[in-house]
Amino acid sequence: MDFTHLLSERTGKMGASAIREILKVVGQPGMVSLAGGIPSPDSFPMERIKQLTDKVFTKYGSAAFQYDLTEGFTPLREVMAVYLSQRGIHVSPEEVTIQSGSQGVLDSLCKVLISAGDKIAVEAPTYLGAIQAFKPYEPEFVRIEMDEDGLIPESLEDVLKNHKIKFVYTVPTFQNPTGRSISLDRRKKIAEIIIKYGALLVEDDPYSNLRYSGDALPAIKTMAPDNVIYITTLSKVLAPGLRIGICVAPEVISRWMVITKQGVDLHTSTFSQAIAAEYVGGGYLEQQLPNIIELYRPKHAAMLSALDKYFPPGFTFSRPEGGMFIWAEGPKGLDMEKIYWKAIKRNVAFVPGKYFFTQAGEGLSTMRLNFTMSEVVVIESAIEILADVLKKEG
Amino acid sequence: MDFTHLLSERTGKMGASAIREILKVVGQPGMVSLAGGIPSPDSFPMERIKQLTDKVFTKYGSAAFQYDLTEGFTPLREVMAVYLSQRGIHVSPEEVTIQSGSQGVLDSLCKVLISAGDKIAVEAPTYLGAIQAFKPYEPEFVRIEMDEDGLIPESLEDVLKNHKIKFVYTVPTFQNPTGRSISLDRRKKIAEIIIKYGALLVEDDPYSNLRYSGDALPAIKTMAPDNVIYITTLSKVLAPGLRIGICVAPEVISRWMVITKQGVDLHTSTFSQAIAAEYVGGGYLEQQLPNIIELYRPKHAAMLSALDKYFPPGFTFSRPEGGMFIWAEGPKGLDMEKIYWKAIKRNVAFVPGKYFFTQAGEGLSTMRLNFTMSEVVVIESAIEILADVLKKEG
Repeated sequence: MDFTHLLSERTGKMGASAIREILKVVGQPGMVSLAGGIPSPDSFPMERIKQLTDKVFTKYGSAAFQYDLTEGFTPLREVMAVYLSQRGIHVSPEEVTIQSGSQGVLDSLCKVLISAGDKIAVEAPTYLGAIQAFKPYEPEFVRIEMDEDGLIPESLEDVLKNHKIKFVYTVPTFQNPTGRSISLDRRKKIAEIIIKYGALLVEDDPYSNLRYSGDALPAIKTMAPDNVIYITTLSKVLAPGLRIGICVAPEVISRWMVITKQGVDLHTSTFSQAIAAEYVGGGYLEQQLPNIIELYRPKHAAMLSALDKYFPPGFTFSRPEGGMFIWAEGPKGLDMEKIYWKAIKRNVAFVPGKYFFTQAGEGLSTMRLNFTMSEVVVIESAIEILADVLKKEG
Repeated sequence: MDFTHLLSERTGKMGASAIREILKVVGQPGMVSLAGGIPSPDSFPMERIKQLTDKVFTKYGSAAFQYDLTEGFTPLREVMAVYLSQRGIHVSPEEVTIQSGSQGVLDSLCKVLISAGDKIAVEAPTYLGAIQAFKPYEPEFVRIEMDEDGLIPESLEDVLKNHKIKFVYTVPTFQNPTGRSISLDRRKKIAEIIIKYGALLVEDDPYSNLRYSGDALPAIKTMAPDNVIYITTLSKVLAPGLRIGICVAPEVISRWMVITKQGVDLHTSTFSQAIAAEYVGGGYLEQQLPNIIELYRPKHAAMLSALDKYFPPGFTFSRPEGGMFIWAEGPKGLDMEKIYWKAIKRNVAFVPGKYFFTQAGEGLSTMRLNFTMSEVVVIESAIEILADVLKKEG
């Protein structure tokens, strides 16, 4: 039987499968993927996870396998409150909620806030997973301009002045897809603007721990605590397969997000949360972080120098001080999806940048390159091949 | 800042917190709870889980902690396909998807199928968690009548004849909240009716493994495979904290549910799924099931005999052959929520039955009693106390 006629209106509008389709070939044997957004398995502290898993059995017993509070596993909320406070986000454990990855935070946030047609402001480009979380709730996207220093405060103020915005969504540090970070000066201005307009800003912060050079930037949450929903995750500093997202939101929103989450998955895996509680609480996150940074630093350097060496003139690329991505932009008129298919034939994959824009026709000549999943020599040769494909096209 | 004005229209309509509020007192020290719907921690095969967790580290290594396919962890889909086939549901691994608990299945199902105002048909009473999953999508609930033999086929046919129904939702075996099972004869009729009307039926089957007497009943899915979305879970036969739900749905719906789930949580905890794969694949579910049944059988018997012995005349209750719940109904005019607060004062909790109905004013004199979480002697004394409260009220 074909039940297509039963699909909801939102399903018809989602059309989220274009990128899934083009990325299907990435898994082919022999493919070098600069397409993913995933951490290297070498970054997972496997011995430590094993040891903490054993501890979870003795410390929590069957409680680690039972139904638990929707808000999150209490010991994890407690240690995350301490962890966040050390980073200038002063919260009590009751203000911290645990969700099923950052993705889970974004979904419940939309369910609580977005009615069809509501406006949300996003950077252009923005995180693809956020677009996928937002779209089923049928918002209207309003574009905020960015440059090498991240989101432009004046553009944000324009948007807030001229539109009724439910929330502003930003990845301020080592943004996915561009790798860009909002400068300290701009963060201060952004904080002032959202306070001035009584606006709500969603600060998605998965990457700020992955800094290879330069000085740490404070979260916008520290500058406008009442106006910011802060999201972080253990996916890049422990293991994504545990699916642990962390959220600090204003009380009324947080309370509704919990009620909403109860309908979505009751709660996040108790066992995963218990392991995460022991990892963060035991100080192992801080211990492991330098190892992860040392793992990624040469990859990051290798990609930047290969881009310098091989990429044809007319191309610009971001020079992030951390994170997982570099963003490259080719000359106007270049069709990066066409390049994608040619590169695939030579066993190199990346993500055409247009998928990170909410409006069709934008970012056609851009690409996102990931450097965490491949070895240094592989990155160098992959960039050389990509450059060759681009030159033949140019 | 108060961001109440930013809440979505659906949030305003959810109002899902009444039961949360009344159940808050259940956690008080000294309370005997017949309110929960949770398995006894004594049913968790802790030694086995520990052993299989160790095996996951050696067998899958870092892959058990990495991002994974939204559809589910391949080894788990493979063993679940075999498991379901043994129960008459013949599917390939590709047709099985893993979600974050049954709750996750219900959420993504609604996202894919329900536009505001669409009609879904539910038993009266029905599973509270399903109501909580459905409500944010703003459906209209159409009531199907049931009696001691479960959902009444004639009522279902009436509903399908007179309404445009997106799907029919039923828990056919040891229903939550009533404990009732749809008889074999009725299952056949229901299968015929949904085929005749080209209707979609959602069969939620968490409890059928927990049978203490009588003969197994085949899933409706086995009788109308094209028209049934089959949902089951490992929460009652392994451990709910792992959050593993299993779904078999028609292809077009399943595909959209996966795309939807990608936006909701990317995928279910890989580590949880790997443990589940080893548990089901190693035949340990079948090994553990008799232990769980022997654990619950005396509790089930104790509650039924205490009800027989102590409950006042004018009360009826279900006599299920399995599951986790018994449903009691008092004389018309009795306000079971009033009884609830009096029982709480005497340290016994249950769930007033009205919360399992989608329409206000229904089930006022009913209650759901859980027997899996308390010891036999505790069940006996709790029922005696409840009976005493009811007699004083009557």
